[in-house]
Formats: sequence, C-alpha cells, structure tokens
Amino acid sequence: MALWVTETHRGTMRLSFKVEETLFSGQSPYQKVDIVRTQDHGIMLLNDGLVMLSERDEFVYHEMIAHVPLFVHPDPRRVLVIGGGDGGTVREILKHLGVEQVVMVEIDEMVVSACREYIPSVSCALSNPRLELRIEDGVRYVARTREKFDVVMVDSTDPIGPATPLFNEAFYADVARILSPDGVLISQAESPFYNQDIQRPMLMNQRPFFDRLHIYLFSNLTYPGGLWSFGFASKGLCPVKDFRPERVAQSGIQTRYYNPSIHRSAFALPTFVSENLNGVIDPVENG
Amino acid sequence: MALWVTETHRGTMRLSFKVEETLFSGQSPYQKVDIVRTQDHGIMLLNDGLVMLSERDEFVYHEMIAHVPLFVHPDPRRVLVIGGGDGGTVREILKHLGVEQVVMVEIDEMVVSACREYIPSVSCALSNPRLELRIEDGVRYVARTREKFDVVMVDSTDPIGPATPLFNEAFYADVARILSPDGVLISQAESPFYNQDIQRPMLMNQRPFFDRLHIYLFSNLTYPGGLWSFGFASKGLCPVKDFRPERVAQSGIQTRYYNPSIHRSAFALPTFVSENLNGVIDPVENG
Repeated sequence: MALWVTETHRGTMRLSFKVEETLFSGQSPYQKVDIVRTQDHGIMLLNDGLVMLSERDEFVYHEMIAHVPLFVHPDPRRVLVIGGGDGGTVREILKHLGVEQVVMVEIDEMVVSACREYIPSVSCALSNPRLELRIEDGVRYVARTREKFDVVMVDSTDPIGPATPLFNEAFYADVARILSPDGVLISQAESPFYNQDIQRPMLMNQRPFFDRLHIYLFSNLTYPGGLWSFGFASKGLCPVKDFRPERVAQSGIQTRYYNPSIHRSAFALPTFVSENLNGVIDPVENG
Repeated sequence: MALWVTETHRGTMRLSFKVEETLFSGQSPYQKVDIVRTQDHGIMLLNDGLVMLSERDEFVYHEMIAHVPLFVHPDPRRVLVIGGGDGGTVREILKHLGVEQVVMVEIDEMVVSACREYIPSVSCALSNPRLELRIEDGVRYVARTREKFDVVMVDSTDPIGPATPLFNEAFYADVARILSPDGVLISQAESPFYNQDIQRPMLMNQRPFFDRLHIYLFSNLTYPGGLWSFGFASKGLCPVKDFRPERVAQSGIQTRYYNPSIHRSAFALPTFVSENLNGVIDPVENG
C-alpha cells in the first residue's frame, strides 16, 4: 500500500508527500490536527489538511520569523508569539540569550500537546523557564494585556478557520498598543505568487498603526509554490539600515538558512511583488 | 471528470496541476512531450512527465537565466543557448538590443514545433532574424564549432535522459574553449533542497575550466520545492562586483521578476546551500 498525504491549494494545485505512518490524528475545537511520518520529509504537521511544517525544512520558516526582527531590534527582551503551537518559533527566539521572557499564546492546546509528544525536534523549547505558555485566544490576549513587548510574532495559519481575526485591523491596533517604542511586528504573509488577494489587504490593515511596513521572502520546501513571506511592521526601525550584521556572529547562534546576507537579500522583492504592494509597503534603506 | 497532471519527484513528493485539456502529446526520439492547458497556471509544457514551464511563472526562470549574465558581461554580442526549445530564454535574450546574434542548439525538434504551435507567448521570438536555430546535439555542436560566444546558457532538462552529457566535464571543457575572454557560462543547476547530489558534482566538473564559479537562486512556482538555481561560471567577471545596475534602467527592458536588487540578492545563499558547496564555489565581491 502506498500512502500519500495531499494538500489541495485553491482547488487547482496539489502537493503530496509519501507517508510511512500516521502518528496522531485528532479533531480539536478549532481544527483537524494530523501528524504523519513521511518517507523523505521527516515528521510533518498538518492543520485542516494543510502542511504546517516538516522536519526537513521547518528551520527555514522558524529561523526567518525569529532572527530577522531579533537582529534588527537593538535590545529585544520581551517577545510575544501568537500561535506557533509547534514550538519552532520559540526554539529560535530562545537562542537569543538577551531575551528575558517569551509569552506564547496558542489557542489550540491539541497542537501543543501533539507536537510535544511527536515532534520533539521542534517542540523541544516549550518547557524552557523563560517561556510563559498560555492556551488562550491571542486576539483577546492582546486586547486586554497591560504588558509591553519588543517584538510580536504572529505565527499563524492562513486567514481561514481560527486564524482569521489575526488578519484584522482591530487586532493590529492592539498589537501596536502593546509594542514598545522600538517595537516590531512580524506576521505570516502567505505566498507572493498565490495569495496576492490576502497579502495586500493584510498589509493595508497594518498600515494605519505603523510608520514602516515591509515584507520579506524565504523559500519553504513544503508550502505551495515554495516562495513565502513575512510582514515586517515597525514604529521606526528599518530592517536593513538598522540591521547590525556583526551581532549575528557575536551571538554565536547556529543557523542553517539565516545569515547576514540572507537577512538583507530577503527584502529584495521581485518586480511583480513590489508592483502588487505598491503604495502599501515602504522601500528599505541600505545600511 | 477532474483531470490532473502529476509530477512525481524522487518517488516521495508530487506536484499536481488541474488540467482543462491536453493540447499536444507526442513521443520524440528523445523524450515524451506533452502540452496541457491548466486551470490556474496557463499552458504547461512537460518533458517525460516533468514540468518544464507554465505560462504563469515561466517569466521567472527565463528572466533569471538571461538577464543576470547579460547585465554582467560588459558588451554581450554573441550568445549560445543549448537546449531551451520552448523559446523563452531566446525571447529574453533578444530584448538586449546589443546582442547581434543568438545561436540556439536544441536536440529535439518536437519541443520546438509543439511550443511554436501551442505556447506562442513563450516561443514568440523563435522567428527573430537575430536567431540562428539549429536542431542538433548541443554537445557535438560545442565540440566542433570554431565560433566564439560571450555568453553560453545551458537551458537543459535534468541530468537524466537527453540532457545527461550537458553535466559532464568534457562538455564544460568545450564550452570554456568557445567562450570569449570575458565569457560567462550559465547552467541550470537544479534544486538546492532536493538535488545537492547533482549540484556539487556538476559544479566540480566546471571548476577546472573557470576562474570563478557561483550559483544564484530564484523561486519557480511549478518546480518541486520552489527554490531553484543556476550556475554562473566565468573567466574572471564577478556577478556582483562587475554588475552595473544603471544598465538595467538604461536598457528599457521590461521585466516581472528581475531587477537590480534581485540580481544582487540572488547570489546570497542560505547557510545550508553554501555549506554544501563549500570549497567548490567562490564568494561574491560586493560592488
């Protein structure tokens, strides 16, 4: 018997991965959660049938969401992660020894517990004493917290299902309020090829609350089309001019995708991407 | 009835695209040639069941193979294309008005004639008077020609089937011989995620004949994993230091992916890519 797990994207393209066995399959109040062992991509997490991560390439996504803002902000001490239940984002953040506390707010306890059990290479940092893990709605958390954060990372699924409010203007207003003066917001910003209809309104919803708005790109092996993006919103910091590459070597942090050249080049946009976001995003300044 | 065309990659991952109709299907002496109309990716060419191009994203591959070397070489007049039967590479090269002649050597007449008939948006430049189109074996052509070229582009399929000799040392020795002193060789260099076993030996086979060896990256929507690469080999030119970005605007050439920022950033390599090619490729010099 040949088992394949298949993600259908927009009804017109499919990505399939050969599976050796199903490790976990559950239905939470929010979504279907599946964990499979694939033949060539390690262990894989799917929410509602969409690939969230594979062990083979998760380092790309998690290094790029975490290290880009943490090497731009001059002194990040308090970081908030919305979503990110698999723990990969937290694992990368905690490599920064100057980060004193990470608060992670994940709505779906099932994702956390399943990843703890079946994907320890990703979830390994979820018991770190510098992490405060809260199982609750991230939108409600940012609406009522009195705490401040230097960096907020929205490590969310697509704007269908439980993550939909994470793409709304009201949420971004609350994020802006809880960010420190040098604060940076990073948000999962979908595929520049396939999701232009999501990318532009998402960034438009951030625009009123941030002086600077950028997107940056990376290549994910297991997402449709490969090319993927994060939004970078700040109250003033430029992700290229204010980046201090010497801090990367000084940190001693080991990475497999991220490095200073990748940091800067990730903000170079193909012409069709910058044309689609014309008038919404700002140009980066060279350092 | 729902029709899908499916490419299986290494037996463990599959890419499928929804098809509206088959436009052409033939068996040449070299390979199976299929052209289908997809629902969301335009018309698509497949050789031996592998996606060669789709109308939706072919601009990325063809702009990146052509404009990177043509904006580094100070005065490219004569260009040789090996393969490239669909015509997309020639279409981009001929946008450079300083290019006086392009010789294209394609082994498979069926690819050329099918693309002429069914994919005119890509093959449109194949009747240009500056193009000399030869249906013959590219390996034998470079072995015996007495002509010289400023840029050679190997626009090939994978090193299985008819393209295999295009990855051999003997072929690169001949290419080096027919290149002018400032000459540049560009070669299709596969997926940095999936094809590390091809990439390193391919570049090792080029190494004896070129003073400089680099690879650069781009994102192809319809290739497995998305991230793809070209090799850049030269007798001395650095693809970043010797790049004159002002020539791009002066040329008036319209592009959808390529621009000066993309040119430079394409040579920034993820850590796992540069580690895999450690000792084979050279560092780029900043301009």
